[in-house]
Amino acid sequence: MPGENTATGPEERLRPVFAPRSIAVVGATDNPRALGYMVYANLLRDFPGRLYPVNSRKPTVLGATAYPSAGDLPEPVDLLVVLVPAAQVADVIAEAIKAGHRSAYILAAGFSEAGTEEGHSIQRRLTEMSAAAGFPIVGPNCNGYFNGYARTMATFALMPDADRPTVGPVAIVSQSGGFGSSILTRAVKNRVNVGFFASTGNEADVTATDALQYVVARPEVRVVAYFAEGIKDAAGFLRAARHAVAHDKVIVSVAPHTSPTVARAVMSHTATIVGSSDVYDAVCDQYGVLRAASVDELIDFCLVLQDGRRMAGRRLGILTQSGGAGVLMASAASEAGLEIPELSPGVQRDIAAHLPAFASAKNPVDTTAGMFPDAPRHMAAIVNRILGSDEIDALVAMTWIGNDAPANAVIEAYGEQHKPVIPVVTVDPQLVAERGLPTFADPTRAIGAVAAIARVSTRCPEDVQEFVVDAARAARARDILRRAGTNPGLLESDSKELLALYGFPVAADTVCHCADEAVSAARQIAGRVVMKALSYGLAHKSDHGAVILGVEGEPEVRKAYERLSTLPGFPVDGVLVQEMVSGSLELAAGIQRDPVFGPVVSVGLGGVLVEMLGRPRLLVAPFDIRAAAAALDELGHGRLVGGTRGMTTTQRDELAAALVGLGALGLELPEVVSVDINPVKVSANRMVAVDGLVVLDR
Amino acid sequence: MPGENTATGPEERLRPVFAPRSIAVVGATDNPRALGYMVYANLLRDFPGRLYPVNSRKPTVLGATAYPSAGDLPEPVDLLVVLVPAAQVADVIAEAIKAGHRSAYILAAGFSEAGTEEGHSIQRRLTEMSAAAGFPIVGPNCNGYFNGYARTMATFALMPDADRPTVGPVAIVSQSGGFGSSILTRAVKNRVNVGFFASTGNEADVTATDALQYVVARPEVRVVAYFAEGIKDAAGFLRAARHAVAHDKVIVSVAPHTSPTVARAVMSHTATIVGSSDVYDAVCDQYGVLRAASVDELIDFCLVLQDGRRMAGRRLGILTQSGGAGVLMASAASEAGLEIPELSPGVQRDIAAHLPAFASAKNPVDTTAGMFPDAPRHMAAIVNRILGSDEIDALVAMTWIGNDAPANAVIEAYGEQHKPVIPVVTVDPQLVAERGLPTFADPTRAIGAVAAIARVSTRCPEDVQEFVVDAARAARARDILRRAGTNPGLLESDSKELLALYGFPVAADTVCHCADEAVSAARQIAGRVVMKALSYGLAHKSDHGAVILGVEGEPEVRKAYERLSTLPGFPVDGVLVQEMVSGSLELAAGIQRDPVFGPVVSVGLGGVLVEMLGRPRLLVAPFDIRAAAAALDELGHGRLVGGTRGMTTTQRDELAAALVGLGALGLELPEVVSVDINPVKVSANRMVAVDGLVVLDR
Repeated sequence: MPGENTATGPEERLRPVFAPRSIAVVGATDNPRALGYMVYANLLRDFPGRLYPVNSRKPTVLGATAYPSAGDLPEPVDLLVVLVPAAQVADVIAEAIKAGHRSAYILAAGFSEAGTEEGHSIQRRLTEMSAAAGFPIVGPNCNGYFNGYARTMATFALMPDADRPTVGPVAIVSQSGGFGSSILTRAVKNRVNVGFFASTGNEADVTATDALQYVVARPEVRVVAYFAEGIKDAAGFLRAARHAVAHDKVIVSVAPHTSPTVARAVMSHTATIVGSSDVYDAVCDQYGVLRAASVDELIDFCLVLQDGRRMAGRRLGILTQSGGAGVLMASAASEAGLEIPELSPGVQRDIAAHLPAFASAKNPVDTTAGMFPDAPRHMAAIVNRILGSDEIDALVAMTWIGNDAPANAVIEAYGEQHKPVIPVVTVDPQLVAERGLPTFADPTRAIGAVAAIARVSTRCPEDVQEFVVDAARAARARDILRRAGTNPGLLESDSKELLALYGFPVAADTVCHCADEAVSAARQIAGRVVMKALSYGLAHKSDHGAVILGVEGEPEVRKAYERLSTLPGFPVDGVLVQEMVSGSLELAAGIQRDPVFGPVVSVGLGGVLVEMLGRPRLLVAPFDIRAAAAALDELGHGRLVGGTRGMTTTQRDELAAALVGLGALGLELPEVVSVDINPVKVSANRMVAVDGLVVLDR
Repeated sequence: MPGENTATGPEERLRPVFAPRSIAVVGATDNPRALGYMVYANLLRDFPGRLYPVNSRKPTVLGATAYPSAGDLPEPVDLLVVLVPAAQVADVIAEAIKAGHRSAYILAAGFSEAGTEEGHSIQRRLTEMSAAAGFPIVGPNCNGYFNGYARTMATFALMPDADRPTVGPVAIVSQSGGFGSSILTRAVKNRVNVGFFASTGNEADVTATDALQYVVARPEVRVVAYFAEGIKDAAGFLRAARHAVAHDKVIVSVAPHTSPTVARAVMSHTATIVGSSDVYDAVCDQYGVLRAASVDELIDFCLVLQDGRRMAGRRLGILTQSGGAGVLMASAASEAGLEIPELSPGVQRDIAAHLPAFASAKNPVDTTAGMFPDAPRHMAAIVNRILGSDEIDALVAMTWIGNDAPANAVIEAYGEQHKPVIPVVTVDPQLVAERGLPTFADPTRAIGAVAAIARVSTRCPEDVQEFVVDAARAARARDILRRAGTNPGLLESDSKELLALYGFPVAADTVCHCADEAVSAARQIAGRVVMKALSYGLAHKSDHGAVILGVEGEPEVRKAYERLSTLPGFPVDGVLVQEMVSGSLELAAGIQRDPVFGPVVSVGLGGVLVEMLGRPRLLVAPFDIRAAAAALDELGHGRLVGGTRGMTTTQRDELAAALVGLGALGLELPEVVSVDINPVKVSANRMVAVDGLVVLDR
């Protein structure tokens, strides 16, 4: 369950895999075109521990004594790296377990990805052996791992004679080996300092999420780039995300936008609106995981996050030599939710003293392309004055070339200041990048990366919620659920009672079983009432004439009761008499279950236009009232709360609390498949659900 | 006026500038660090016409006889390239005009961009001289131009000893010289074949839009990358756009998202929703101009468009060696509106014959990373089978490296086929790029570029509209406008009459000046009516109790008349009795004037939730019923038309026709500042405006 916080993760279990003191390469060979050569040669170059080649047909490999099998090694090793053909792998693992070796990384292919019965069967055996012996297995069908902090390169993702990455605080974890190594290659090319890379392939045992948990806990790691086609292990993923936020680290995820792991939509009425990647987006939002739209963006984010600098707010300073580029950047920044505050008169005066008369000191600070005398001194003064003020939280500085006075001033200021400083160099960015600054060629991409720093900087460890089951409440809830017998859903009256139990305000109503009861109930409410037929067979009441609005006075009530209680085609289990509720605004809320992340609460604009009003906001339970209020603040393009026609902030907080209750309902009652509340009516002084449908797992 | 179609553009006038037979460089010098050297040396290297250095202090420049002034040249030249200090420029131009030279490109800086009175004053003189003599001037404060088709490099954007771009079908036009040259540099680095580059700087005379019109008409040009901070000359821009669509060329525009040239919002009720860049977006949409979000994207688009290939539809084939990357690309493609059709069983069978058993032939076609025997032959067969089928319109093919069998099969197929083929090569893309294919390293960016091809391929020359004023209708309209006297807006009754004249359906109503008239009007309508006070002082009637809904029967009508005709605080000019219109859907429509592009018609979801329902769709007049219908199809996330609760297609077409009428109103009556129609009520069998406000220019 997502809310569950496992005290221990896979870190200790994976220590022999990722930080081994001894390694044996099964399938090591002298043939320079074989993968078994590449991995062994890669390890040989740098690995500080004990390294053994295993080769059944050769006495030596690259000059070292080779052992015929894993069982013949002189000591139990921490890790076996396995590169022999698939058909031999199960035997190798069996022998390894017997010999007391501690883990295996299987790089060989030909298992379940091969689509053959034999491949599936061998992989199942691996899973069974791993589980039975508590023996960690990574792979098969992957390309290994690289742990620069432990000088261990057990992969063929890089050639043995290739330059090694500059080891730094960025880790890459990818289920797909091929795609992961392309991320690695491009990251290194773009001067991202990668200290760790792991691919998990078919995941017979260890998953990408396990590797993520392992690596995010390493003290050397600040940023983890994470690629997986879908999340299998929600608890592990959330545990890693919680650890990251608590330790001010960042997980950046690139993922396909439509995950095959989720088939159902989130709001039953709006099947086409919400797909599962929206749930994943909501999880990332709530748990402070950055979502990158492309590999380029993933690398951009790693590049600016690897120095660990943070922004105190969302205020960006822009320094440019081109007015056009300045406007382009300012526009992109404001689209990305950053602020470009006009600098205070004092700061502007100080900067203007160093600028030509026709330049602008406001922000963007535009020096213009016209060079001025004594440029180095002036540029340094300008850059330092902007960065030194408490009016901006980060600086993007654009220059044409990478080795002139403006660029050098930026490079120097980067070394002296602690705010994020992002150079944009249009002609030769590599000249600045090689000085260690997070350098961009494209101004718009630089802005996108700053926005990522801002998002990370405003995360709160408290965003991460724990949930405790209220057993007494759950017991009362189950008394209500039982009334449905074997029916798939609750009656409206019972649905609303359940909602009320979890703190969701509902319209006042009475279930009546004769006309006299209805008359009396209507009299109690006073004024016009709504009357509805209750029936387990009726999912969409208004489509079957089962709702009569605006009933007033005894004769009308009796007539309505007569009609509703004899509705053709449906056994009627009572007639509901409910107060008429008016509202200037209609919302819809609900719960659905994501197969990965569990109960998801949705809230959006509602009523008849629900299908046209865009995507509802999603909240993955558990979440707190602050998260719910923030979601409501973003509804209706940010105009739902506080606008002339929307909700007051008091109503927003009341609804936020009700949504937290829905989350509790979803967590406490796993047998509830979905809840659909539509509409929730909001008027000046009230907010109340007038219909509700709870569906159970049958 | 945007609708106006000037028969002749600036092409002929700019011929001496951009395709000169003779050039003099005023300020040419031997000093290799001077701009006057760089430009002269750049021209000297390649220019096939007659080239003269002008230098007042030296007898020769780089070995050629120098002339002391523009007046001393041996012939009237087509173009003077001017690089002397600002203070001397006006004299140079005066002398040039006197000597019969034909045009000037002023690269010198120090004019209005300097912010000094002197700078402004010199630039004004240039503008005046140009206008008086019909003498074309480009600049000042720019970095010149490059016309590879005419071997003319009159710019310092590239060094004289630098490699020249491979001349090809891409042109770059930028108002900003600095930003333009950074686009040029990065385009060339990314193997975009640039044949033309021009910067227009301060635009004392010739604008970027003029240069755009010139270059889009060149037969060698297929794609124009266009950067301007704002469009000054709507007619010229639209003329260029029309030419591009008619000749199957493409203009790609990168522009800041919030243009400073536009201050007003498009819908008066929703001031914060629509900014001017939305108008520019709408123009680009309607006129087939591609809008790029960044310089990277601009270059991506140029890269895939330079070979001129088009898609017959939106169906994309994806070939990958990585399942993960395949899903990522498929997801990005479907977000971008492309289709990834599953290949037919026959094609799948043919492909599967060449694949390992565990690979997928569906689409994405995933060969998996596992190499198979005889890979070259199989890969070629697969690529050709996909491209040769009539089931896909373009292919994105991902490989890890650039010189293996899969990559070579893609390179070969590119040469043999005519559909767009986009290789994605994650490790060494340059190996494929240098073979002339539009090659990407990032899979998501490749998909974005294919989406651009698809957009361009589906443009219609008929999208481009001409508008003819209907003088008789305009005269009748002005009779209605005159009723307002000196008031800023029309009464609701007159507003609706005007709308009806232009074909917009309005609710039936009668203006009454006594209670008897009101009773009689209500009787004619039958059933309940709405009564409203008419007053020039009342902009928001319902806020002042000036609207009474559901009035029925003579006593109620008389009471309502009494109340409305004596509304405190406002002189009442009559009472409107109107039919009650019910509708399941409320829309809002209107006209506002964009200072650049003129009348813009907006349409969106309406009623009380208008502020929350996102951006309305915009249509820049003139537009046809097809464009209006397409805009309505996109409203409400594509669910307004055809859904269970929205409009029928008949109603959509009826509303589209009404919007075309609004466009005509805006074009025919420039004195109408804005029209606000809210709501338009839509029910099962009707679509009608129940309120309208026409505001006039006072």
